[in-house]
Amino acid sequence: MSVLRGPVLVVGTGLLGTSIALACRRAGLDVLLSDVAAEHLRTASGLGAGRLVAAGDAPQLVVVAVPPDHLGASVVEALSATDAVVTDVGSVKTQPLREVAASVGPALLTRYVGSHPMAGSERSGPLAATAALFDGRPWAVVPHATSDPAATALVTALAELCGAAVVRLSPEEHDQAVARTSHLPHLMSVLMAGQLAGAPGDHLALSGQGVRDVTRVAGSDPAMWQQIVAANAEALLAQLDQVRTQLDDLIGAIADGRRDDLGALLDRGVAGTHAIPGKHGGPARATASVFVSVPDHPGELARLFADAGASEVNIEDVHIDHDPARDTGLVELLVAEASAEHLTTSLESRGWMTHR
Amino acid sequence: MSVLRGPVLVVGTGLLGTSIALACRRAGLDVLLSDVAAEHLRTASGLGAGRLVAAGDAPQLVVVAVPPDHLGASVVEALSATDAVVTDVGSVKTQPLREVAASVGPALLTRYVGSHPMAGSERSGPLAATAALFDGRPWAVVPHATSDPAATALVTALAELCGAAVVRLSPEEHDQAVARTSHLPHLMSVLMAGQLAGAPGDHLALSGQGVRDVTRVAGSDPAMWQQIVAANAEALLAQLDQVRTQLDDLIGAIADGRRDDLGALLDRGVAGTHAIPGKHGGPARATASVFVSVPDHPGELARLFADAGASEVNIEDVHIDHDPARDTGLVELLVAEASAEHLTTSLESRGWMTHR
Repeated sequence: MSVLRGPVLVVGTGLLGTSIALACRRAGLDVLLSDVAAEHLRTASGLGAGRLVAAGDAPQLVVVAVPPDHLGASVVEALSATDAVVTDVGSVKTQPLREVAASVGPALLTRYVGSHPMAGSERSGPLAATAALFDGRPWAVVPHATSDPAATALVTALAELCGAAVVRLSPEEHDQAVARTSHLPHLMSVLMAGQLAGAPGDHLALSGQGVRDVTRVAGSDPAMWQQIVAANAEALLAQLDQVRTQLDDLIGAIADGRRDDLGALLDRGVAGTHAIPGKHGGPARATASVFVSVPDHPGELARLFADAGASEVNIEDVHIDHDPARDTGLVELLVAEASAEHLTTSLESRGWMTHR
Repeated sequence: MSVLRGPVLVVGTGLLGTSIALACRRAGLDVLLSDVAAEHLRTASGLGAGRLVAAGDAPQLVVVAVPPDHLGASVVEALSATDAVVTDVGSVKTQPLREVAASVGPALLTRYVGSHPMAGSERSGPLAATAALFDGRPWAVVPHATSDPAATALVTALAELCGAAVVRLSPEEHDQAVARTSHLPHLMSVLMAGQLAGAPGDHLALSGQGVRDVTRVAGSDPAMWQQIVAANAEALLAQLDQVRTQLDDLIGAIADGRRDDLGALLDRGVAGTHAIPGKHGGPARATASVFVSVPDHPGELARLFADAGASEVNIEDVHIDHDPARDTGLVELLVAEASAEHLTTSLESRGWMTHR
């Protein structure tokens, strides 16, 4: 019953574009591909993501999946060159909308509805693409004030066809939301990681899991992030100003030995971690860790998971702490708080050394 | 050949104290326990961590494992009441040293050598204890200027008996090191998480893995962190001042649209992530992710690990992205970059749907 019947033209056959194309092909739609990079285009069509666009093709929907700096211009071109509904998959929504609105008349503008699938930013290229990339991930559908409701429905149908969980937001709300939940975390991670550059090796030797977690995203492609940050400058500056105020408060509280103020800032952080919803939009669940000593052979991990499976406890996440210099590793199993005791007992009865 | 022959007196039977006691018992040493909390003491001795200290006991080594605020006083008491070498396991080293040096004469002070095992801060209580807690983890041994070398050797022997990797640092170096690699990351995580508290639910719905990673440690016990931050105020303020300067630079670069300066800050973050050594002190290794769609049944995970094991690729880490609303999950296997292609091919030949 989807209003989406194709053809779908995908402009830009990187990870996101090719993955969307594959998902559309999986659903039996005719998919047209276009890319300025001939090699990407060849790879994507070779993967079965679609056929090269040709004269006379009349797409129902155009998906613009090009880097942030080229987004506005590509959307304008798609609106002008076709009668299709046009969406994009950029991480920022107000700036391309402004560019598009400045270049096309109000009639064309009604055919544009932004979107932002929350997947895949750390990998790139068509070879990394998969129809399953968006499975269960949030996908922001972002109509502007004059978007045609039918166009919004078509883009929503695309997100659903890709298996994503649709979140509808206005362009302003969207950009504020990602400033807070994606771009600010990235920059905080970058600022923290920057403090490690050039630090003495025997100081860095004390690095534990905490600093690794906090700085992980700072390793992502800086050229891409430069574009994203620049495109969402306004919303991001509002967040950064708030952080600067909080940082000043923090520095003041520590310098003056004001323990209660320091405690209030730490409590606010705890509250923030509880505000993040569960991975797929459900409420956050309290998890507990069960640590298991595992001999460092591939087969032992399989045995551990077989034994954990037999205990019928659902494992939410796993961390493995390998030590190349030893023959055991420490595996952390994250499970619902209420199940931790049962899993511990069950694994110990099967001969595993565990602790919590 | 260890110079450590016991008895070892452990003061404070929380997670760290009890784990050290268990490790000493595992090595056959006589372990004495003491705690102001009678329940902890009962639990620890019930776990076989040692026996209650009695009149006439003459420990060779005292391990003070009490909360930061009580550390200095407990070390002073141990130095005064015994002839033993005294160490502690606190996260900060200069402040307790100052307190101890102000309270005891130079002769007693030679028997004090600080230490800081990097393990276990997110869990607490004797029930969570295990002799394996320190296995392969860094353990800072922190002699001061007048520590007796024999005392330093004894504390080093304790760390080695616990299976830890010893890093020797002066108190000042240690506190600068943990300010940078532990306390600053914690506060950056807290500042970021604080920005999520009270945010609209449909904004938070866009939260991905990045913000979860950056904010994870902010959920740790705020009362404990208040003490840690206060105790390491000086070194931490130096770091925070640098971060404030960097933050101002970042805000300026974004506000003025200075792309090159923004790029330089992002590049510095990337360099910082590469500066972190491998988990066990070895060089950091480039890893790649292989994503596998896995039916959401416990047995399937075991099958995946069995098949991954058969490919003889060492799995560095695992993330599981469950979707309670669907019957598949996405499992991310982190492996050495050079092995990713082989693992992908091998898993696909066994019928798994993968992507990278």
